[in-house]
Amino acid sequence: MRLTSFTDYGLRMLMRMASAPERAFSTAELADEFGLSRNHLSKIMQQLARAGIVVTRRGGGGGARLARPAADLKLGQLIAVLEADQPIVECFGTGETRCTINTQCRLKTRLRAAENAFIAHLDRSTLADIALPDADFPLTSHQF
Amino acid sequence: MRLTSFTDYGLRMLMRMASAPERAFSTAELADEFGLSRNHLSKIMQQLARAGIVVTRRGGGGGARLARPAADLKLGQLIAVLEADQPIVECFGTGETRCTINTQCRLKTRLRAAENAFIAHLDRSTLADIALPDADFPLTSHQF
Repeated sequence: MRLTSFTDYGLRMLMRMASAPERAFSTAELADEFGLSRNHLSKIMQQLARAGIVVTRRGGGGGARLARPAADLKLGQLIAVLEADQPIVECFGTGETRCTINTQCRLKTRLRAAENAFIAHLDRSTLADIALPDADFPLTSHQF
Repeated sequence: MRLTSFTDYGLRMLMRMASAPERAFSTAELADEFGLSRNHLSKIMQQLARAGIVVTRRGGGGGARLARPAADLKLGQLIAVLEADQPIVECFGTGETRCTINTQCRLKTRLRAAENAFIAHLDRSTLADIALPDADFPLTSHQF
């Protein structure tokens, strides 16, 4: 089974932000640290903001910071937000399914229950449990 | 989170085969019934055969049949075989990861444990629990 790179990168950003929850992070700095696309990270940060996980502020002293303490952010909930109802198989998606056995299917409920078990297992952990170590001030070329 | 279409189609084939475990099914007939690519289904059937889930025989009376009773085939094990170690996120794949925080990561073990919980939850069911109803002899155009 697979989580999206959107989710993967979103978790990395949150793990880093949780290492220094008192300050704001710009997606530019996070993109530099992780070697990832700033544009892609911005889209992910917008989704996290819409879901109330981070708050963002534009401008010089701006950036994103966690909306709540890392210990209050359950890992399963973070992944559920980032996966944004990614359908586990085709018939879980929007619109009509192409599956010819949909009406007789006894697999669907079992997949849904197992997916819930996956999220519930992750909810045993919080963002605080996976926060990166306290960040030294990130070294970037323009600081020299 | 997402399962592959390879897994989705493999499960449909097994659900159908379990409706009439006493007979062999050809991938051509399954492809017709499901409106799926015969070539794609053949590849999936080969993987199921390699894993000892089905046995295949070439020729007129051939095709694939379940290697064991449907009640002996746990759903989590079937999905694990079909997903064929699909990496849940990039660092679980083969080769070196591009993730810059890999050595400090405390997310990996939690994802692995949650994935195991997902499979374990599915293992509460067997193929017999999701078998399609007893199949009428499938109607295909060449029979008229």
